[in-house]
Amino acid sequence: MAGTEHTARKLTMKDIHAAAERLKNWGRWGGKDEIGTLNHTQPQDVVAAARLVQKGKIMSLALPYDSNGPQGGKTKYAALGRFNPIHLMIRAGTDAYSGVLDHRKIRGADDIIIMPTQCGTQWDGLGHIFYGDQMWNGYDCRTVTSFGAQKCGIEKTREKMVGRGVLLDIPRMLGQEYLPDGFAITNEVLDRAESHFGVEVRRGDYLLVRTGQIEAMLAASTWDGYSGGDAPGLAFETLDWLQAKQVAAIATDTWGAEVRPNESDEAAQPWHWISIPIMGLTVGEIFHLAELARDCAEDKRYEFMFVAPALPVTGAVGSPVNPLAIK
Amino acid sequence: MAGTEHTARKLTMKDIHAAAERLKNWGRWGGKDEIGTLNHTQPQDVVAAARLVQKGKIMSLALPYDSNGPQGGKTKYAALGRFNPIHLMIRAGTDAYSGVLDHRKIRGADDIIIMPTQCGTQWDGLGHIFYGDQMWNGYDCRTVTSFGAQKCGIEKTREKMVGRGVLLDIPRMLGQEYLPDGFAITNEVLDRAESHFGVEVRRGDYLLVRTGQIEAMLAASTWDGYSGGDAPGLAFETLDWLQAKQVAAIATDTWGAEVRPNESDEAAQPWHWISIPIMGLTVGEIFHLAELARDCAEDKRYEFMFVAPALPVTGAVGSPVNPLAIK
Amino acid sequence: MAGTEHTARKLTMKDIHAAAERLKNWGRWGGKDEIGTLNHTQPQDVVAAARLVQKGKIMSLALPYDSNGPQGGKTKYAALGRFNPIHLMIRAGTDAYSGVLDHRKIRGADDIIIMPTQCGTQWDGLGHIFYGDQMWNGYDCRTVTSFGAQKCGIEKTREKMVGRGVLLDIPRMLGQEYLPDGFAITNEVLDRAESHFGVEVRRGDYLLVRTGQIEAMLAASTWDGYSGGDAPGLAFETLDWLQAKQVAAIATDTWGAEVRPNESDEAAQPWHWISIPIMGLTVGEIFHLAELARDCAEDKRYEFMFVAPALPVTGAVGSPVNPLAIK
Amino acid sequence: MAGTEHTARKLTMKDIHAAAERLKNWGRWGGKDEIGTLNHTQPQDVVAAARLVQKGKIMSLALPYDSNGPQGGKTKYAALGRFNPIHLMIRAGTDAYSGVLDHRKIRGADDIIIMPTQCGTQWDGLGHIFYGDQMWNGYDCRTVTSFGAQKCGIEKTREKMVGRGVLLDIPRMLGQEYLPDGFAITNEVLDRAESHFGVEVRRGDYLLVRTGQIEAMLAASTWDGYSGGDAPGLAFETLDWLQAKQVAAIATDTWGAEVRPNESDEAAQPWHWISIPIMGLTVGEIFHLAELARDCAEDKRYEFMFVAPALPVTGAVGSPVNPLAIK
Repeated sequence: MAGTEHTARKLTMKDIHAAAERLKNWGRWGGKDEIGTLNHTQPQDVVAAARLVQKGKIMSLALPYDSNGPQGGKTKYAALGRFNPIHLMIRAGTDAYSGVLDHRKIRGADDIIIMPTQCGTQWDGLGHIFYGDQMWNGYDCRTVTSFGAQKCGIEKTREKMVGRGVLLDIPRMLGQEYLPDGFAITNEVLDRAESHFGVEVRRGDYLLVRTGQIEAMLAASTWDGYSGGDAPGLAFETLDWLQAKQVAAIATDTWGAEVRPNESDEAAQPWHWISIPIMGLTVGEIFHLAELARDCAEDKRYEFMFVAPALPVTGAVGSPVNPLAIK
Repeated sequence: MAGTEHTARKLTMKDIHAAAERLKNWGRWGGKDEIGTLNHTQPQDVVAAARLVQKGKIMSLALPYDSNGPQGGKTKYAALGRFNPIHLMIRAGTDAYSGVLDHRKIRGADDIIIMPTQCGTQWDGLGHIFYGDQMWNGYDCRTVTSFGAQKCGIEKTREKMVGRGVLLDIPRMLGQEYLPDGFAITNEVLDRAESHFGVEVRRGDYLLVRTGQIEAMLAASTWDGYSGGDAPGLAFETLDWLQAKQVAAIATDTWGAEVRPNESDEAAQPWHWISIPIMGLTVGEIFHLAELARDCAEDKRYEFMFVAPALPVTGAVGSPVNPLAIK
Repeated sequence: MAGTEHTARKLTMKDIHAAAERLKNWGRWGGKDEIGTLNHTQPQDVVAAARLVQKGKIMSLALPYDSNGPQGGKTKYAALGRFNPIHLMIRAGTDAYSGVLDHRKIRGADDIIIMPTQCGTQWDGLGHIFYGDQMWNGYDCRTVTSFGAQKCGIEKTREKMVGRGVLLDIPRMLGQEYLPDGFAITNEVLDRAESHFGVEVRRGDYLLVRTGQIEAMLAASTWDGYSGGDAPGLAFETLDWLQAKQVAAIATDTWGAEVRPNESDEAAQPWHWISIPIMGLTVGEIFHLAELARDCAEDKRYEFMFVAPALPVTGAVGSPVNPLAIK
Repeated sequence: MAGTEHTARKLTMKDIHAAAERLKNWGRWGGKDEIGTLNHTQPQDVVAAARLVQKGKIMSLALPYDSNGPQGGKTKYAALGRFNPIHLMIRAGTDAYSGVLDHRKIRGADDIIIMPTQCGTQWDGLGHIFYGDQMWNGYDCRTVTSFGAQKCGIEKTREKMVGRGVLLDIPRMLGQEYLPDGFAITNEVLDRAESHFGVEVRRGDYLLVRTGQIEAMLAASTWDGYSGGDAPGLAFETLDWLQAKQVAAIATDTWGAEVRPNESDEAAQPWHWISIPIMGLTVGEIFHLAELARDCAEDKRYEFMFVAPALPVTGAVGSPVNPLAIK
């Protein structure tokens, strides 16, 4: 298996620094840019993406946000403090039934959500990962304080996240239900998938890469091992592939996009060290790709209109999202 | 002014009950339906909506979610317990800079949001308002408990909220910056707006009605009087108009869609008594329509592709949303 | 073992209703009372309790409130929606170090807590449990709405929770480290403990009953089985004993005070059906009694001044608390 | 007025640094101490404090924690991100009445609190304020991260906060209802108060200083100007007085203990720069002293047993508290 051989030599900090030099997009869209590769999508790409809507089918790529979400599982790694959404009512139908709302002359329910922005299907914003003391476009990491991200907040993307979506369904190509933990999706695998599915990834695309890990968890009725645990995922070398392809963003159906155990002992999530702060690449995680994958297998069309607007929470470094694939 | 005359006689409970009989859509999409008029949009409507994308321009209709949001203001009415979003960091760039994250071998930020689902730009779900002891499609209101909405939760809409959007910009038609509080947008006003802007509202559309109230607040640098206060808005009679038009959903730039002071002394928000639980009409509120309105005035096109996916929070009766108008 | 024999016959609803008739204290302290048996403690009792302070030793009976708290465990029973405290910073020392606070001319940290009132060491208020449609003193249960408890809120106790504390250390009496799950502490056991430890429970006392379950969990480094799981605890018949003794309140080191599996198949937590709504008995749970137990064993004094003020959260049905035993 | 003359010359950073040198208690209780002046109270002081309980009267010094709390007001100064408590139900009596809980075989209510630790009556912990890059006892301020205070967390005080309380009721001494904003309570004022009320502040005491500001706010039915606004309060020079007296802690009925406008233009809250990080002085704020003041005026006894246990929230830099004065 490509992945297994590939990861034979562990990445050192020297490899990571070299990648940083090689792939740095700082200044590419001006010194004040805060959205990075989302700039790759041009107006004409949005028009072309809309033309891909041909049968009027809308597919949601979001997991439900609730107490059964993916933060419930255990792994051998240290936890990050994320938890599943806590949903609480301010007023409920039971209050209505009990008559206690009638002095208001209307019976209604209202509610509150408490959630980490990255507890379920989510965008990682460009304020999410730092490289040394810097973040995307060279901004000082101290612009992300306890008050939130003064630079690169997710709200800066509020008129992006629309374009051509492309699905590369790796386990389907390999005749598997899902990829095993530790499976590294290499450039060769990605190239082969383009060819296999007859779809080319192009500048400005939103690339979705399926591993099947969510389906594996749902089949096993447990999230143990998912959030923060080992997983199949992108190899470090895909950073170069993505840079060459000029994708707008990439999303996977795993917790952390990249392969785990990681390809380095010196850095955790080495692919993240480069993708977000150095390349300015917005990353989607925990995208639920099962329905879309079935549909693509059925109609043989692996491209679609993709619309996945982040909530413009000022200063947030991520966002929950209900991504839609529209065909 | 149409609105002023119109509201001369206050609505009684008899009027409201008559409207409930006249406009009841219960069972129209089967006894198990939980999404109501969202059913009006058909696949071919989604395809047609996508064809409206012609210049590749994406416009967000969301206010930022932050502590400067619309819940900050005061009104003469009783408060509802909603508050502006509270955004907190689990890890920040200042932690990174201080070196306290380095044992993790990656420097990152993470955050949490605490927010009423209806504190800013939002969808009202069909679990939000009750009619007596019942809700949309005749479900018992006791299915909305402190644990959330077992029926008609907003997550049921996760593959909807896509279609043709139409903007009716009432103040622009009237040559005003914004409509005054208490201005009732009647059926006659809506008809006139269609004609004025050369756009016809059709089955399955997402209708956006602008009053300009958000711009008035932003100009005055205060939200006092906005959330829960008096406002221009839809007249009660528009329920019949919307039923006839078979819209999928309607949204306005006000806190509560309908005109305030309300047209009834016996019921608060009488339009809501019918629209949500009786007709099954999903309602958008606090949509920020200024940029879209400017664009429509410029290119004279008041129709566009509309994509505004709710977050699928299980059992929620509303959802924050970043609605996109794509032209 | 007394407990085992005792529970041979399962309680029926008839038993529970009979206990309700027998033990009902409604009206005992007037029709407007909202604090029940806390009234048993008289000013002279407070003075006498203070006289028990003889060596100036202060012992906290609280578990730490943090993410390692007792809500983390799993049981075979359905969960209740409680979670461990979530502690978040508004400003931190790392912000200070990074210099981002200096425009304020002071460097400080600030924080927020999100917690169920009953996630750790806690008081159950009198609004916590209902008997049919009624609660303590006959109040309608509909006075506890989504807006909180309009009657019997924990804030009504704010000048109580001070008196003579008495510890009955059951496992120590029995020569055990801790009591096994399902062990029912009967009246006979309580009587024997008074005699064994040479301490008499009197009117107005705050009675603490130790089972050792927390120490068992801490020794095993897991909370699995604790919150909502099986446990040693008070037998149903102790309701009569407590009524006769006229205690102000009772607290144990278990999640739910009473023995589990419960003594009834028809009612869950049958002891709670009577203690809180019928007797007006305030109940403490998850009190960490290990240090106090060691101290009492050492100085042979099982009485002390007890001060455990609830936070006066308006309308709350419980409260976190740092209970102090002062000797 | 002493205060007015006193503040004629504004404090410079030089004054503050000199005070830091003069009053530094670092190392006084060993290099690992995390509770500072709370060490002043000795076991015999606790015993003596208990002897002050003579009539069995318990007085709460806490404001209710609810949406009407002191964070609701406006001032001319920048806000700090604190808000009033948000209290939400997980289950309510209206659920019980509606029958939706009966499958559980028990009817109960449960709730959640979301609150800044310093939104109402509160203790400032020793992790709350930094001096340069250091905090109490010389600890690095980077030990207070987004994960909380690894040093000097409020949980370290869990077996403290018991001792002799002394009230100095300044407005009563001066024949005023309450002190005006900007009134500086100087050492001379404190000395005079001791003499006037016939009470001497001693080593290990918990000193409560009343300004009457809360009563002024309650009388005016507004919190505008209170939290973060101008206020009467302690003069900077009282730091020396408190050091000499060796108090365990001090609390006032104002938002920020010290006089505002501050006595310095170069530092905000200059008294805080020294009291917390340099002296290790725990500070109570927003203590509601009205009832206690009335009682002391009545029985002429300005000393009492004081018990005000912080909630042991791990890593918190403050704590809500229901402080009790027991006489």
